[in-house]
Amino acid sequence: MLNNEEWKELINTGIILSSYTEMDLILDRVVDDSIRIIGCEGATIYIKKGNHLEFMISKNIIIDKKIGGFENNVKKFTVPISNESIAGYVALNNEPLIISDVYDIPSNKPYKFLKVFDEMYQYRTKSMLTLPMNDNDNNVIGVLQLINLKDKNNNIIEFDERSMFVARYLSSIAGSVLKTTIYNSLLRNSYLEAIERLAIASEFRDLETSAHVKRISEYSAVFGELLGFDRERIINLKYASQMHDIGKIGIPDRILQKPGPLTVDERKIMEKHTIIGYKIFEGATSDVMKLSAIIALTHHEKWDGTGYPNGLKGKDIPIEGRVVAIADVFDALVSKRVYKPAFDISKVISIMKEEKGKHFDPELLNLFFKNINRVVSIYDKYRE
Amino acid sequence: MLNNEEWKELINTGIILSSYTEMDLILDRVVDDSIRIIGCEGATIYIKKGNHLEFMISKNIIIDKKIGGFENNVKKFTVPISNESIAGYVALNNEPLIISDVYDIPSNKPYKFLKVFDEMYQYRTKSMLTLPMNDNDNNVIGVLQLINLKDKNNNIIEFDERSMFVARYLSSIAGSVLKTTIYNSLLRNSYLEAIERLAIASEFRDLETSAHVKRISEYSAVFGELLGFDRERIINLKYASQMHDIGKIGIPDRILQKPGPLTVDERKIMEKHTIIGYKIFEGATSDVMKLSAIIALTHHEKWDGTGYPNGLKGKDIPIEGRVVAIADVFDALVSKRVYKPAFDISKVISIMKEEKGKHFDPELLNLFFKNINRVVSIYDKYRE
Repeated sequence: MLNNEEWKELINTGIILSSYTEMDLILDRVVDDSIRIIGCEGATIYIKKGNHLEFMISKNIIIDKKIGGFENNVKKFTVPISNESIAGYVALNNEPLIISDVYDIPSNKPYKFLKVFDEMYQYRTKSMLTLPMNDNDNNVIGVLQLINLKDKNNNIIEFDERSMFVARYLSSIAGSVLKTTIYNSLLRNSYLEAIERLAIASEFRDLETSAHVKRISEYSAVFGELLGFDRERIINLKYASQMHDIGKIGIPDRILQKPGPLTVDERKIMEKHTIIGYKIFEGATSDVMKLSAIIALTHHEKWDGTGYPNGLKGKDIPIEGRVVAIADVFDALVSKRVYKPAFDISKVISIMKEEKGKHFDPELLNLFFKNINRVVSIYDKYRE
Repeated sequence: MLNNEEWKELINTGIILSSYTEMDLILDRVVDDSIRIIGCEGATIYIKKGNHLEFMISKNIIIDKKIGGFENNVKKFTVPISNESIAGYVALNNEPLIISDVYDIPSNKPYKFLKVFDEMYQYRTKSMLTLPMNDNDNNVIGVLQLINLKDKNNNIIEFDERSMFVARYLSSIAGSVLKTTIYNSLLRNSYLEAIERLAIASEFRDLETSAHVKRISEYSAVFGELLGFDRERIINLKYASQMHDIGKIGIPDRILQKPGPLTVDERKIMEKHTIIGYKIFEGATSDVMKLSAIIALTHHEKWDGTGYPNGLKGKDIPIEGRVVAIADVFDALVSKRVYKPAFDISKVISIMKEEKGKHFDPELLNLFFKNINRVVSIYDKYRE
């Protein structure tokens, strides 16, 4: 059926495929490997979304030679999972389908071949193998469609046992890996969503407006980018910075909502929001929550050591705390508050420059002002 | 190298392996398949934890025949990742190691074979193949160790190219799948942890004691079990029930902390905690949070339609809301509160029975009292 070299290639493809964790990479690899190992002209993958198949990727070596960049030219579309289309039929019945010539499908079959594609690219689709991609419970998660199998003399022939075997292998491994990948990304969303709900919960005490929290988060993400943080660390900062004032949940209304200035004792209680915020996340194991604890605790520390709660100084203050300190003060100054009008940018900059090396890390403040245009566009985007 | 049948078997093993999502299943399968396809006597897997290898599973067909249930007899242990042991050496150097006779290791090698195992089972380990299990970035995530390869005449021989190839394939696929599995379970923990932090945050307003929240969660999980919910649904209920009073975050201190009875207007504001709780989770996509919204909204509805906020009646109240209503009232009655002493169980039962078909779903209440011993043991376990 296959020779030793071909078996080895198949095995290695399986190893590589099973190691991928990003959907695009997996799909790309399955399409390429199907064409190469099976020896056909084209391959297409659809992924199931509800009761439709969503077109994901298509490659065709003949059309690509003709027009170049074929792959990027195909527009996204969906196909209903029903008997009318070939891919829909295969997904509905969860069985592979071999067609020797798509222009010669018997009229008693429910599905039809659509010639649009052939006409558009002056191409002749002939033989076709369409098979479901299944997860471990044999649920359909997508469809793999192969076009025009060729023999040694370059003649187009019907898909055979060998191609079916290889296609099944590739689509099975890909199906399993895709299922995990999809599950993973749902889980990751749920996780980040759960954290966001904490921010939402705190808004119900009128602690912060959601726009303020959102802006702090976006300014911080820009900082992360400018500081060369990797993608994961930027995302962590983006979410964790939203938690900076979460500890205010534990501050009594009489202090939180007092219209006039606070007494010394009241101020001391108010300052506890940093420690309460820290305690809310203390002992958490996930990165975002660990960082949330750090930011909650340190976003009122000052570069010169006169901040609270621990009077940390300079680089003893974690960089994320120094970042949020700048973002938080900037946003308060530039916004209207009960106790102050909105200041214009030039006034905000001059006020904050006064605090360079006192309240704020001087290098970070320079970086912030150097990119003030990006900062202002975030402010404009998320105005109250 | 392999014949067609063997290749096919290998391919199918890869498909099955890649579809697994539970660590125990994956390890079991790799060990079994290694012994069967390669034709050796035993296989052991270690998984890396920090700078140690943790023993996970070991099978040996010879010892198993001798003593039966060998697999379950092996005690858990760890091996440091260092040059002294064979598995540690392989993990440290990230390279496979073939030893023709472990009783004949040259003295200039850093690693030694430990005979404890052989002596314990009167077994003779001879040839050995030890190889790292890698993830897609070539990091070591574990070690697979094979023992005593046999030829057709049942003689023990050195591990050959064929066995190396098969072992590499199995350990590579398993490595990838294990990495995803481990990542997944971390992610799932983070997610549930994030939700728990919401409960912790609300405790900082003295809304509920953590013991009360924990008990409600445990009573509800018992309900889920008794109602025949599947594992996932029980976990969802366990976490979501903790959120039932989260909306109290949005109720002013003067009402929340008022010592005497509330006025009609104050009561109306207080009752809004159901709607606020719902809003905190409104639009969430994850199952736990969707259920949290439902429970927050409906845990004060009453079976006869006299509850709030929507005056739902009977089975129009979602079952999880009916469950938490019983759990919440029970725990309030059985506990000491500012406004009441702790009642004993018989008094609690008689008070609640009065409300059967009025406040509470009669069937659920029967189920609850039928299992009152389990309920009481939860109360005892998580006393304040």
